[in-house]
Amino acid sequence: MISGKNYIGNVLSSLGNVTYKTFNPETNLENEIVYTEASAIEIETAIALATDAFKTFKLVSGSKKSNFLNEIANEMEALGEELLQTYCSETGLSKDRAIGELGRTVFQLHSFADLVKEGSWVEASMDTANPKRKPIPKVDIRKMFVPLGPVVVFGASNFPLAYSTAGGDTAAAFAAGCPVIVKSHPMHAGTGELVASAIINAALKTGMPNGIFSNLNSSGIAVGETLVKHPQVKAVGFTGSIAGGRALYNMAAQREEPIPVFAEMGSINPVILLPNAVKNKGKEWAKTYANSITLGSGQFCTNPGLILGIKGGDLTSFIQFLSEEIVKIEPTCMLHPNIIGAYENNKAKMQAQKGLKTTAVTNKNVANNYGRQVITTVEGSTFLENTTLHQEVFGPFSMVVQCESTQQLEEIISKLEGQLTGTILANNNEIEDYSTIVSALQNRVGRIIFNGVPTGVEVCPSMVHGGPYPASTDSRFTAVGVNSIKRWVRPFSFQNWPNKLLPNELKNENPLNITRLVDGVQTRKPI
Amino acid sequence: MISGKNYIGNVLSSLGNVTYKTFNPETNLENEIVYTEASAIEIETAIALATDAFKTFKLVSGSKKSNFLNEIANEMEALGEELLQTYCSETGLSKDRAIGELGRTVFQLHSFADLVKEGSWVEASMDTANPKRKPIPKVDIRKMFVPLGPVVVFGASNFPLAYSTAGGDTAAAFAAGCPVIVKSHPMHAGTGELVASAIINAALKTGMPNGIFSNLNSSGIAVGETLVKHPQVKAVGFTGSIAGGRALYNMAAQREEPIPVFAEMGSINPVILLPNAVKNKGKEWAKTYANSITLGSGQFCTNPGLILGIKGGDLTSFIQFLSEEIVKIEPTCMLHPNIIGAYENNKAKMQAQKGLKTTAVTNKNVANNYGRQVITTVEGSTFLENTTLHQEVFGPFSMVVQCESTQQLEEIISKLEGQLTGTILANNNEIEDYSTIVSALQNRVGRIIFNGVPTGVEVCPSMVHGGPYPASTDSRFTAVGVNSIKRWVRPFSFQNWPNKLLPNELKNENPLNITRLVDGVQTRKPI
Repeated sequence: MISGKNYIGNVLSSLGNVTYKTFNPETNLENEIVYTEASAIEIETAIALATDAFKTFKLVSGSKKSNFLNEIANEMEALGEELLQTYCSETGLSKDRAIGELGRTVFQLHSFADLVKEGSWVEASMDTANPKRKPIPKVDIRKMFVPLGPVVVFGASNFPLAYSTAGGDTAAAFAAGCPVIVKSHPMHAGTGELVASAIINAALKTGMPNGIFSNLNSSGIAVGETLVKHPQVKAVGFTGSIAGGRALYNMAAQREEPIPVFAEMGSINPVILLPNAVKNKGKEWAKTYANSITLGSGQFCTNPGLILGIKGGDLTSFIQFLSEEIVKIEPTCMLHPNIIGAYENNKAKMQAQKGLKTTAVTNKNVANNYGRQVITTVEGSTFLENTTLHQEVFGPFSMVVQCESTQQLEEIISKLEGQLTGTILANNNEIEDYSTIVSALQNRVGRIIFNGVPTGVEVCPSMVHGGPYPASTDSRFTAVGVNSIKRWVRPFSFQNWPNKLLPNELKNENPLNITRLVDGVQTRKPI
Repeated sequence: MISGKNYIGNVLSSLGNVTYKTFNPETNLENEIVYTEASAIEIETAIALATDAFKTFKLVSGSKKSNFLNEIANEMEALGEELLQTYCSETGLSKDRAIGELGRTVFQLHSFADLVKEGSWVEASMDTANPKRKPIPKVDIRKMFVPLGPVVVFGASNFPLAYSTAGGDTAAAFAAGCPVIVKSHPMHAGTGELVASAIINAALKTGMPNGIFSNLNSSGIAVGETLVKHPQVKAVGFTGSIAGGRALYNMAAQREEPIPVFAEMGSINPVILLPNAVKNKGKEWAKTYANSITLGSGQFCTNPGLILGIKGGDLTSFIQFLSEEIVKIEPTCMLHPNIIGAYENNKAKMQAQKGLKTTAVTNKNVANNYGRQVITTVEGSTFLENTTLHQEVFGPFSMVVQCESTQQLEEIISKLEGQLTGTILANNNEIEDYSTIVSALQNRVGRIIFNGVPTGVEVCPSMVHGGPYPASTDSRFTAVGVNSIKRWVRPFSFQNWPNKLLPNELKNENPLNITRLVDGVQTRKPI
């Protein structure tokens, strides 16, 4: 049962006056439940509870945090049909997608549970004392990661489960030992509340302190702004637009005590089509890319919005194939009238740019809120001159740039903004002749793909989902995979600290049996 | 031979009009050599060279980077007397200190050389493909750290060798594969140029690309500002004042593409004197701390500027002991008239605060630029009310706060700004009764010390030299120890990449024999 209220710690609360509803883009109607935006006093209470909870949560063992994370996954799965139906009614996405994304979310929670149960993630390091060292004795120093403090998480419109309430940012923060306050995404407030209830139930079942989690409804920017500016908030996670992420980054940087903001933002995910690939496999790649561009109505961060090739007959054929293939695909529902509204505006703005030609557009009648896919093309020199053409059009839209030469291709790549991904499509050994192209592309991206599509972000330790600005606000971290925990922790040293008072991770006897760096050697042995 | 010129890549250059000299605080006279500040064209050239050098330097093997780093150390040692004498003439510090700091600098360079020669620091991680996975095949993803790009390093006034030209920030950046542009500290421009010549010689001898290093003279803020705002600069390292570090942080955060700034700034390094420690060992601690407070004329980032105890006869005695001990110590020369000027001003400002009592001051006649040590004391409630008392007085100054109660002590700790270090002085098992005090202190610091002094920062993997703001601008990193390399690198993923085109670190056969995470298991085995 969705109440429309906020979770202020373990308590449902609705003291505010601002209310709103979610929208079903498939039926083109508002959903019925009324949500009450968190009021100033509720925000303050949530932060005070989180600050207090941090004092005990930071000391909770990896084993207990693991139980908590696994229990969140169980509770989410136990929500069953209500969660899936709410998800679909608030996003226009299919039930299969809901099931898939729930599976991904549950997998992420279990991954972090396994990580903290095993325990070596804290990167324990110990340099033991040497009282005989000259000219001065060597002290005993031991280090491990400790949590930063309360983290604010902004849910993503396009991933109501995997990158929202109990998504990657939250799971990583809990694993680290940080309380989380979620600024719920207004487009899927019901999904958010259900998942929040799962977190609260899991916290109660596994004995976690009240305040470890709050879920704040919000329809505008005020709640988020209050949270990010609050002195007791110590870090921020965000997935969304460049404008939104940058605004939060700026607020955090202007605080008296600046705090880290990890914002995963826009990307056009350039794809480089090398000459032999387009010549020999142009038709196949066109079909593959028509599917990638339209996957999830083009509403993925890794959607390929830019395809770069060398001008000529083969590229012309590729554009034709891609245009033919993409119109064969049935349009699908987009997330919200605001999302499709922005898509239509950005598309129109792009199509109004001088020199941009539209080569394919789905003209058939579609239901309200369904996104019509579009392929466009432009000359390399035009693209270079007009940086408006470098901007993301969030939706099933892509642009093929016809470069004059390899030199121009390299110049274009080097002038792109930072990207989540870059892809090279090449035939056999052709890529070896384009090492400067590859090098330039590596400089601009967080992940580089050979002969594949950028959509599909594998959850595994080797994944980087991030990249140079504006793909993210800090390319030194990833939003996906267990290493994303490093966004929410800091290294901490104990000097000459009594063994019995050290955390278990750093005790001589290594009671947790974790891997540690002892005097420069990785080992599980006790000291 | 010091030329007074800038190194723009490998070339000595002085196209500018602004000149300045360094100052010998011991003789109270200007040194003779005239330095020419880098001009706009020289700054631009240095950055263009660095950007170009990055294209090749980022691909240089760990083994070759290791040779380069070791050679810098050799070249620095080969500078011999000229370096030591220049150092002393520009700082007022002793020759012993110069030798000690040179040793530390050389040790740091060798540490990074060893790190990159061994190679496992890149944290290679590989998740191999599983084409049979349902519902979708698993792709091959491999990850490692790659360098960010050109790094600007601002030398520290108080560490002309270890945290300046070829100091920790520079060594870490070179190890990472980042070109470095040093904004030379105006107080020790000669030392800076000599060390720069060592770096250039080492780069030439080991075949490093021109532009991997430049050294820019600068007497004001203009050169630094131009560097930090330049689009081709990708990260900044700084050691110095809060005002200076925050200004650079703000500039970097306001760029179109924000970049990471790691600034290690001020700290008053609180010391908690627990009741039994002050009762049983007050006299010993007083002597130890008199030495720590005056070490290097109090010009260490980890100088203990704040001592917190519980009011009573024992603490009164401690203050008396400390006051007696500190005046026995001979004052020493401070770094520069500007530094002693600031010390005198800040001391006077502090002494003018209501309720602050001065319990010891060295009144004997001292030479020009010698810092007179001062001990002050204040009531806990007064300290809580007046945050001016929480500020750093850079120099041989400390304040003892007499708290009413343990509760007040905890409140004071929780209201302190972020600190590099915190220290607990306790007798036997006394510390176990103060777990909330310890917990509060841990929240505010990067390193916690038991029964010792904060001065003395061991260079080892377990060291954290950093901490919550304003100890540093990002508590997730350290400025000391080989892990400081992580400030200048980002994780990067290759998806489905041909084995022969992967970097050696990620090739199936593991040609570098490094430790890698392969499908979740740490191993040196090939795939």
